[in-house]
Amino acid sequence: MIVRNSGRLIARATSPRNREARRLIIQAIEAALTSVDPIRVMKNRVGLKGNVLCVEGFRLDLRRFRRVIVIGAGKATAGMASGLEEVMGRKITIGLVNTPRGAQVKSKTKKIVFHEAGHPLPDYNGVQGTREMLRLIANVDENDLVICLFSGGGSAMMPLPADGISLADERKVTAALLKAGASISEINAVRKHISRCKGGRLAELLYPAQVLTLVFSDVVDDRLDVIASGPTVPDISTFHDSIDVLKKYGIWPDVPQTVRSVLLDGANGKRRETPKPGDRVFHRVHNFILCNNRAACNAAVEQFRKSGLNSLLLTAYLEGEAREAGRFLSSMIKEVEFFGGLLSKPAAIVLGGETTVRVSGVGRGGPNQELALCACMTIQELDGVAVGSVGTDGIDGPTDAAGALVDGATVSRARRFGLDPSHYLRKNDSYSFFSRLGDLVFTGSTGTNVNDLSFAVVL
Amino acid sequence: MIVRNSGRLIARATSPRNREARRLIIQAIEAALTSVDPIRVMKNRVGLKGNVLCVEGFRLDLRRFRRVIVIGAGKATAGMASGLEEVMGRKITIGLVNTPRGAQVKSKTKKIVFHEAGHPLPDYNGVQGTREMLRLIANVDENDLVICLFSGGGSAMMPLPADGISLADERKVTAALLKAGASISEINAVRKHISRCKGGRLAELLYPAQVLTLVFSDVVDDRLDVIASGPTVPDISTFHDSIDVLKKYGIWPDVPQTVRSVLLDGANGKRRETPKPGDRVFHRVHNFILCNNRAACNAAVEQFRKSGLNSLLLTAYLEGEAREAGRFLSSMIKEVEFFGGLLSKPAAIVLGGETTVRVSGVGRGGPNQELALCACMTIQELDGVAVGSVGTDGIDGPTDAAGALVDGATVSRARRFGLDPSHYLRKNDSYSFFSRLGDLVFTGSTGTNVNDLSFAVVL
Repeated sequence: MIVRNSGRLIARATSPRNREARRLIIQAIEAALTSVDPIRVMKNRVGLKGNVLCVEGFRLDLRRFRRVIVIGAGKATAGMASGLEEVMGRKITIGLVNTPRGAQVKSKTKKIVFHEAGHPLPDYNGVQGTREMLRLIANVDENDLVICLFSGGGSAMMPLPADGISLADERKVTAALLKAGASISEINAVRKHISRCKGGRLAELLYPAQVLTLVFSDVVDDRLDVIASGPTVPDISTFHDSIDVLKKYGIWPDVPQTVRSVLLDGANGKRRETPKPGDRVFHRVHNFILCNNRAACNAAVEQFRKSGLNSLLLTAYLEGEAREAGRFLSSMIKEVEFFGGLLSKPAAIVLGGETTVRVSGVGRGGPNQELALCACMTIQELDGVAVGSVGTDGIDGPTDAAGALVDGATVSRARRFGLDPSHYLRKNDSYSFFSRLGDLVFTGSTGTNVNDLSFAVVL
Repeated sequence: MIVRNSGRLIARATSPRNREARRLIIQAIEAALTSVDPIRVMKNRVGLKGNVLCVEGFRLDLRRFRRVIVIGAGKATAGMASGLEEVMGRKITIGLVNTPRGAQVKSKTKKIVFHEAGHPLPDYNGVQGTREMLRLIANVDENDLVICLFSGGGSAMMPLPADGISLADERKVTAALLKAGASISEINAVRKHISRCKGGRLAELLYPAQVLTLVFSDVVDDRLDVIASGPTVPDISTFHDSIDVLKKYGIWPDVPQTVRSVLLDGANGKRRETPKPGDRVFHRVHNFILCNNRAACNAAVEQFRKSGLNSLLLTAYLEGEAREAGRFLSSMIKEVEFFGGLLSKPAAIVLGGETTVRVSGVGRGGPNQELALCACMTIQELDGVAVGSVGTDGIDGPTDAAGALVDGATVSRARRFGLDPSHYLRKNDSYSFFSRLGDLVFTGSTGTNVNDLSFAVVL
C-alpha cells in the first residue's frame, strides 16, 4: 500500500460512483509510483550478463576496468544506488552518493556509502559529500568505470562552488535569481559557471575514465543539461551569458565580489569555459535517462485500461499555474462527461509535468493540492467524477502530503463543513482545506522524483 | 475571404512548413466563422414548408396565428433577423430587434426594424428599443406567435430597469459587482431581479402568446438562463439570493436606494418573484439553441480533416486565464510533436470557450492575443507548428483585431525586431507585440458571437 490513507480517502465519497472514481484514481497513483520506484527501475533497466553491463543496448565488458566507482546525488539516489548494488553486487569497487536526509531503502548497500545532503538549499553537508566523491575519483584513468547516479534535486545536493567562492555566496546568487523570476535555464547558466561539478565540469574531472551516467528525470522535457545541472553533459551557456543574466535582472551590482570576479575572469579568458558539445572530455561519457514522468504516466494509463477505462495520456509536458491547470483539466472532464468526442465514458485522463503556484496568500499548500482545489470547484455536482494530483516524491510543496483527491461532491461536502473553497484558494491554503475534509493523499517520502501527476476519472 | 489579411499572415512565415501550418489555421478560422454566420445558420436550422415552421423537429402551423412578431437583442441579432426574414418573408407581421451599432447585413430586412443599442454598457438607446418591443407585444394573446432572437450581449442590449430604478442605478450595481469579482451567475441573480425583461420576465409579458426563442450561445456551457439573462427561461435565483450576493461582496450599503427598496420589497413579498421552473408562463415557450461555440469547433475540426490532418476537439468548455491556456495548449503540442500518443502528425487541436485576462499591465490586448503570445513563447523553434486564436465576433478585448497567429519561429523573428515577448506579456501588451510583427488576425466585426476559438497545427 503506497497511499497510506487509501481506505479513508475512498470512504469520504458520498455516492457509489464517486467511491469507484476515487478508488480508480488511488489505484492509478499506486501503479504510477510503483513503476518509478528506483530499486525496481534499476533492476529492470540495468542488466548484468556475466561480466557485461547492459543499459538500453549499450554494453560494457566490466573486465576491461580496474575499478567501478559509483557517485551521485539527488532525491532518488538512495534507491538508485541500492538497486544498482542489487544488480552489480561486488562488481562495484567503491561508491558514495549524496542522499536526502532520512532516506531509507529496503536493502542496505555494502559498497556505496550514503551521505546526507541538504535540499532544496545546498548545505555544508552536501559540500562535504561532494568533496568525498572527488576524492574517490581523484586518480581515475581510462581503466576506471565511473557510474554517476543523478536525479531531481541533484543540483542542490551536489554543491561545490568554484575556487574562491563560498557556499553562502553561491546561495545568495541563486536566491537573488529565483526572487527576480529568472528562468531555470538562466539560473543554470549562472550556477554552472560558479560551480566545480555542474555544466559538464564533472566530466572534465572524470576524463579519461569511462563514464556511465544514469538519470531519473524531474524535468519536463528531460533535458540532460538541466537535470542536476548536467554534471556530465556539454554546456551551451557561457561566462558572458551568465553575466548577461545577472545584468538583465538588475542584480549584478548586488552579486558578491567573489562571484563577480570569477565570472569576469571567465569572460576575459582567464578561466576555462565549461566544456562544450564535441569536447573530448565527453568522448567516453554516456548519459541515459532511466526513468521519467512519462514512465509514471504510462503506468497510470495502463492501470486505467486494465480497469476497463478509455484512457488518454494528454501530455507529459504540463507546465504553468497549478490552479489554471485544474480548470483546464475540468474543461476536458466536461467535454468527456457531456459529449465524449475526446474520449468515451468510462474514461480516464492522465497529465504529467510540473505546475507552479504564484503565492499571493499566506496559507499552506502545494501545486498538486491547489490544482485539485480548483478542479473540485469546476466539477461541482458531476457524479462519478474524481480528480487526483500528486507529487511523485510524496511531498507537495512545503507540506507532508503528496497531494489531494476530490470528486464532484467535494464542494457540497465542504459547504456542509462550513468551508468556502474560493476563500482557501485565494489564500493559497489548499492544505488546510483538504486537511479539514480528510482529502489529502499521504504516501510519505517515496524516495523517487519524476515530478507531478494528475488524473481525472469520468465514469 | 473572412480573414482580411490572410495573404500577409501566411507570408510572415519563415519556413515552408510554418507557412503551411499558418495557411491551415487561417482556413480553419474561415471555416469556423462561416459555419456560425447568422444568416446561414438561420437558413439551415429554421425551415418553412408551406405554412409550417420547423425548428429542430418542432413544428408550428403558422395558420394558427393572427400575427408573427419578432423581437430580440444581441451581437448576432441583425444577421439572425435578416436570415429569419429570408426564410419566413411576409409571414412575419412586424418586428424590432436591438442590434449593435453599425451592424451590417447583406440583405435588408423589410419587416424587422433594426434599433441600435449600446454594448457592453447598456444605454438609453437600448432602453428605447426595448420599450418599442414591449409596445409591439403589448396586446399579444394566444393567437400570436412571438419569435425572440437572442445572442451574446443581449443582456446589455435589452435593458429596461424595474419600475422606480433608473438605468444609471442599474449600471452602478452591475459595475460594482463586476469590480468586486462576482461570478456571472451572481451578477445575473441581481440583474434579473431589478429588470423588467430578464430572468423569465419577458415570458410573463408574452403570456399567453406562443413563444419561440432562438438563441446563439456565447456561454461556455450553453445555459439558457444565462445567455442574454434568459428573458424567456425560468429563473432559479430569488430576491433573497440577490440581496445575499450584494452583502457577500460588501456592496449592499453602496447600492442605490431605489435598487435596495425594490429588492427588499421583493424579499418581503411585496413584489412578484421572477417566474420559476414549472410556472405556467412557460407552457407555450420553446427555447432553442441554434448555434454555439461547439458548432464552430466542429466546423474547424472538419476543415482540418479535409486537409488531411488528424484532428481533435479537445474541449468546448475552455475557461481560465488566457496565457495559461496558451501554455497548456503548448504542452499538448509538444506531446504531439515529440510523442504522438495523443494524436499522430500531421495533427490539429481545436479548443473552444472563453478565456479571460487578469490585467496587471497597462498595455493593449485581448485574451486571444495573450493566449497566442504565451503559446509562441513555449513552442519556440518547433518547425511546422502554428497556433491561432480568435474571438468569433472579430473583436478581441478592446482592440480592432480578432486575435493573433503565431508559429515556432515567431519569437526569433520578434527578437530580430528587438522585441522581447516576455516584456509584452508582463505588460498585457499583446496587441503592440503582434502589431509590430504583423501577426494580428483581422476579420472586422463578424456579426456573430459564439465566444473564442483556439487552434494548433503540428505538421
